[in-house]
Amino acid sequence: MLKIALDAMGGDQAPRVEVEGAVQAAREYGLGIILVGRKNVLRRELAQYEEAALLPIEIAHASEVISMSDVAGKAVRAKDSSIRVATGLVRDGYAQGLISAGNTGATMAISKVVMGVLPGVHRPAIAQVFPTLKGTLAVLIDVGANVDCAPEMLTDFAIMGAAYSRVVCHRENPRIGILSIGEEEHKGNELTREATPLLKQLPINFIGNVEGQDLYSGHADVIVCDGFIGNVALKVSEGLVNTVKSLLRESLEANLTRQLGYALSRGAFEDFRKRVDYTEYGGAPLLGVKGVCVICHGRSNAHAIKNAIRVAREIYEGGVNKEIEATLLKGLEELPAASL
Amino acid sequence: MLKIALDAMGGDQAPRVEVEGAVQAAREYGLGIILVGRKNVLRRELAQYEEAALLPIEIAHASEVISMSDVAGKAVRAKDSSIRVATGLVRDGYAQGLISAGNTGATMAISKVVMGVLPGVHRPAIAQVFPTLKGTLAVLIDVGANVDCAPEMLTDFAIMGAAYSRVVCHRENPRIGILSIGEEEHKGNELTREATPLLKQLPINFIGNVEGQDLYSGHADVIVCDGFIGNVALKVSEGLVNTVKSLLRESLEANLTRQLGYALSRGAFEDFRKRVDYTEYGGAPLLGVKGVCVICHGRSNAHAIKNAIRVAREIYEGGVNKEIEATLLKGLEELPAASL
Repeated sequence: MLKIALDAMGGDQAPRVEVEGAVQAAREYGLGIILVGRKNVLRRELAQYEEAALLPIEIAHASEVISMSDVAGKAVRAKDSSIRVATGLVRDGYAQGLISAGNTGATMAISKVVMGVLPGVHRPAIAQVFPTLKGTLAVLIDVGANVDCAPEMLTDFAIMGAAYSRVVCHRENPRIGILSIGEEEHKGNELTREATPLLKQLPINFIGNVEGQDLYSGHADVIVCDGFIGNVALKVSEGLVNTVKSLLRESLEANLTRQLGYALSRGAFEDFRKRVDYTEYGGAPLLGVKGVCVICHGRSNAHAIKNAIRVAREIYEGGVNKEIEATLLKGLEELPAASL
Repeated sequence: MLKIALDAMGGDQAPRVEVEGAVQAAREYGLGIILVGRKNVLRRELAQYEEAALLPIEIAHASEVISMSDVAGKAVRAKDSSIRVATGLVRDGYAQGLISAGNTGATMAISKVVMGVLPGVHRPAIAQVFPTLKGTLAVLIDVGANVDCAPEMLTDFAIMGAAYSRVVCHRENPRIGILSIGEEEHKGNELTREATPLLKQLPINFIGNVEGQDLYSGHADVIVCDGFIGNVALKVSEGLVNTVKSLLRESLEANLTRQLGYALSRGAFEDFRKRVDYTEYGGAPLLGVKGVCVICHGRSNAHAIKNAIRVAREIYEGGVNKEIEATLLKGLEELPAASL
């Protein structure tokens, strides 16, 4: 049975939502979950679910907890943290993937140290999925693992994003764009101008520059960028969705006619909420490490944790890492001899 | 009478929306407009408004038009373009401000060449206003005039943004943040880490790092960033607002109950549209040049042009440039002697 290791101590509402998400996932997806954290705490939490005893949920003890404010260096030195134990379970083959809603920097650093990096990958990166107007899902990569990126790092992001798009978003020949500030190739900054010729040499469907609005247009299936830019884009989006919800709610509560209108159209808002809700998309994978690692928002609820478990399974079963390795190899073979 | 020069040939729907916006502004605000462009074309367009003859609208002839695809260098060499003639009117004191919905790169380049840069400013920058959840307006600067910024350029952006926030957004002691990817000072990239100590030395209310969601939270009144990042943030927002509108419309049209609900709550959507609609905020000023220059979206309608004219007047009458110069001078005086 496929098993997912879940850092149960990481998120803002840990371990409550982690355990609840694990129970839901074990029930719905029929896969095994290893809850990682303080044994006593997790046993007590799990005991609240009557069905838990019948589900394939185990507990792996870890005495330490990395907090959101711990720096990555300190976190890496903690030898018995829940993140570290979870990554060890993946490295040793006891689990096929790992989920954490804890400290993102620590999760990345520990994953790289414990599981290692895929051969040929310069730097692992975090990919985030967005719903588009075409009804497809687009992938933005990197959304925060690397800042001040060198151009060749963006070629890794393209290859990793393409594999993820094919397997998890079901885009057969994903269109890969580079996030810039104009459609023409010369528009952009030093990084985009230097990365573009490298991206053109890859065995991918590279479509050139895309702009901010293309996150949602569906024009590109994968958008590569420096992690600083990607993180800003992600948080601007989150902030704006919340703002839109607030402004609409405020306006809709302003008088009785509107309140009635809202009541009648509530289903539409529910649809909308679901389509823009990050919890539906199940966390963001750290691609490029040897193993499957899905990072969840610190504010994740049980639904988000459950969906992250689903995504981890899809990445594992779909062979995202094998595809990344194969494309990297193919890219090397296709490079003109002069550039080697 | 205060006069605004309007490049009437620049936007996607020029000169129709420019002339219509000019007529609205002259009527509502009681200020003079100088339409700049091909005299015959503009006369014909203006003749469609019966009231035009009674309004203080003049025409200044310019034989050339800069297209959206022209590069800035070529645009600067065109000696009789509508943008160039309009900037000349401001430089020579015939007009107190200039509006263009044309080629942004060309408008920036020509404004800098013709009007010059305020003493002490490293690089002019474009400021964009956003509505916040607190009901205030926040300013993002730079949204595209400069990429690969040096740290000291961000100090200019802070000073210029603060002046703009005070005068146009009515924030008495604006809170200035730097756009980054975490609240803590060490989180960010090379640029944010190098700019932060410089920003701390300025005579402004600097609050440190802010994140993408703070564009809309109202936590900061002014957010400074590299123009590449700012442009991406702006376009991500535009794209998301359009996506939200489409998704909601789709959902609301799905069945009769929802359609009725929508009809009853239409006022709320109208409120919402107005609050997130860029046309309400009247374009984005190019701050740091000697004169007032407001850049509009190429897709601007007459309403956006009218509001841009209002903003140009506010910048001029509120003395934004004088305030920028005074703060730059104060900053120099307050710097520790050792750093001079």
